[in-house]
Amino acid sequence: MTSPLRVLGVCGSLRAKSYNRALLHAAIELVPPEMVIEEYAGIDELPHYNADLDVDGGPPSAASWRSAVGAADALLIATPEYNFGPSGVLKNAVDWASRPPATSVLHGKPIALMGASTGMSGTARAQLALRQSFVFTQSLVLPAPEVLVSNAATRFDAELRLTDVASRDFVHRLLVRLLAFARQLQPRA
Amino acid sequence: MTSPLRVLGVCGSLRAKSYNRALLHAAIELVPPEMVIEEYAGIDELPHYNADLDVDGGPPSAASWRSAVGAADALLIATPEYNFGPSGVLKNAVDWASRPPATSVLHGKPIALMGASTGMSGTARAQLALRQSFVFTQSLVLPAPEVLVSNAATRFDAELRLTDVASRDFVHRLLVRLLAFARQLQPRA
Amino acid sequence: MTSPLRVLGVCGSLRAKSYNRALLHAAIELVPPEMVIEEYAGIDELPHYNADLDVDGGPPSAASWRSAVGAADALLIATPEYNFGPSGVLKNAVDWASRPPATSVLHGKPIALMGASTGMSGTARAQLALRQSFVFTQSLVLPAPEVLVSNAATRFDAELRLTDVASRDFVHRLLVRLLAFARQLQPRA
Amino acid sequence: MTSPLRVLGVCGSLRAKSYNRALLHAAIELVPPEMVIEEYAGIDELPHYNADLDVDGGPPSAASWRSAVGAADALLIATPEYNFGPSGVLKNAVDWASRPPATSVLHGKPIALMGASTGMSGTARAQLALRQSFVFTQSLVLPAPEVLVSNAATRFDAELRLTDVASRDFVHRLLVRLLAFARQLQPRA
Repeated sequence: MTSPLRVLGVCGSLRAKSYNRALLHAAIELVPPEMVIEEYAGIDELPHYNADLDVDGGPPSAASWRSAVGAADALLIATPEYNFGPSGVLKNAVDWASRPPATSVLHGKPIALMGASTGMSGTARAQLALRQSFVFTQSLVLPAPEVLVSNAATRFDAELRLTDVASRDFVHRLLVRLLAFARQLQPRA
Repeated sequence: MTSPLRVLGVCGSLRAKSYNRALLHAAIELVPPEMVIEEYAGIDELPHYNADLDVDGGPPSAASWRSAVGAADALLIATPEYNFGPSGVLKNAVDWASRPPATSVLHGKPIALMGASTGMSGTARAQLALRQSFVFTQSLVLPAPEVLVSNAATRFDAELRLTDVASRDFVHRLLVRLLAFARQLQPRA
Repeated sequence: MTSPLRVLGVCGSLRAKSYNRALLHAAIELVPPEMVIEEYAGIDELPHYNADLDVDGGPPSAASWRSAVGAADALLIATPEYNFGPSGVLKNAVDWASRPPATSVLHGKPIALMGASTGMSGTARAQLALRQSFVFTQSLVLPAPEVLVSNAATRFDAELRLTDVASRDFVHRLLVRLLAFARQLQPRA
Repeated sequence: MTSPLRVLGVCGSLRAKSYNRALLHAAIELVPPEMVIEEYAGIDELPHYNADLDVDGGPPSAASWRSAVGAADALLIATPEYNFGPSGVLKNAVDWASRPPATSVLHGKPIALMGASTGMSGTARAQLALRQSFVFTQSLVLPAPEVLVSNAATRFDAELRLTDVASRDFVHRLLVRLLAFARQLQPRA
């Protein structure tokens, strides 16, 4: 028997009614067997990265974040798109997790990306920018499917439940692919 | 007589002995006639961007930052490269300045980029990622010269003064070009 | 009296029923007063760039292309998106025009981008990749509006006329902005 | 016993004295046991991609290229950097190989990137642009090591042999990592 794949879910938007957090919650609801998704809710507690603070394991918020990433078998990131990139707060979380490079908890980590936007793009450009950062960290980002939830206001209901059937199907396929991808990359017995 | 071009200098690294802040200080020293450069030192005081906080003008740190950007004729940004992108804290500052889009203080703003790194790249990838963000904000980023100070430990002295002659020349040329570029883009009488 | 702005239009797709060529033709139809747009139809005649061929002015097709770009006041490029980038043939045309760098006909050239795709993206990623190339050439790419014609099959009629009113308006605004941008960047008397 | 990993080597520069072809030849010389590298020399014979030509399997040059990519266990690409991107001819080869998307020979293909330039960048930006294209094709690009051979004129001898020891070591490590990466991704018995 295989133990389930432990996935850490992260939302890059901080506002209470974030469509991206709602998307992450939809993923938690749609989780396939053999996978568990736990949400990490503390990236807003990380200070702005400053190497001078990053001594003796860094501040508690950073130690907690690194520990959670390190313990996870894979990451699932719901990113907003701000200025054609990920939010600063999400990039800051990546910056903390990436240090020190030699033993970064992101090294070799399987990652799946998704995003929602009120406009047409569905965060396509932010996801590409994140992929570029994850080349540096030597993480392994699932190539497809792209989950680009555009026109978000029409795909979630008033309680921020993802009601759009096609979007739900994309999220489910992303999780199934992430499971297979992470299994494939795990060391063989 | 023309009044001098008022340039707001921003460093994207927070550590005390930042090569990028040292690069910004070199620029201040090398400033051409008809330009003044003032350093903005408060981007670390900005909270992580959260639309729920961005009401009634946002927190005082954001109002101060937007006001400083709005009052400047141009920006000069010294960016580090973290994970092939700008630092999260710098991206966060861009995110605050970019809101609300319709009247963003970044709209139409001339911007010059430079960067220093201890490795070979000189922040080339981070600068390209910033350029992408400044397409969204409709800022006008000077195309060249690229100021990519690689192997920074060999180009600054122990007091973090930029001693490398070629690098000083690149910084000076960047400022001269920024002056001409900003003048060209200003409304004609 | 000012002479009209001479714009060279280029389509990055070669197929006969290209939506991007149709988009370029729509632009020609929507041209504002004080602008003329001429289509350059010969980028498929350029050989694959090879520095060994680029002697004594290069092959006739390259000389013709460089001459046309050099004579234009601005470029208007309709790009398809192949593999999240511009088509190879369009990139190849940029490569020819960019040489030699010191006196490249792309240096300082105002450029406007637009694109059409049958899917959702409207060539957003290809346009960003082109912008990156035009940083190297020190061209001046208009930041906005983005003309991203998605779901192209619904926006052109059977004769490939752009019938979608919103898209026509975007194209027109792009041209008006290009005119102002290029005028602003021209040397002052 | 495992059969050796068959790697198809591709150089994105066409000139006779290309440093990138020389880099590919160095890789062939440094090949580890259990890997064979064969050079594909025909990307200059591909016409500019045109969907109208891509019927009944396309022209012979495209059929040959697709067949070679499809038969390889992995790709090794030596890319030049033209205008902050891959050469047009290399992008054109990617465009041909990517069609039709549903059964593209690039789908799931392990790929390693390297590059040489006479300047400082070592083709860093071109490699990132290629990585973006290979997201679309759902190829699996090795995250590291980056092989960025800068100042190429000092690292190859007059016969274009890679003499720089550190560069040779990087190339060797890339091949070793590609071997492990491709093996990891192959279906398990």
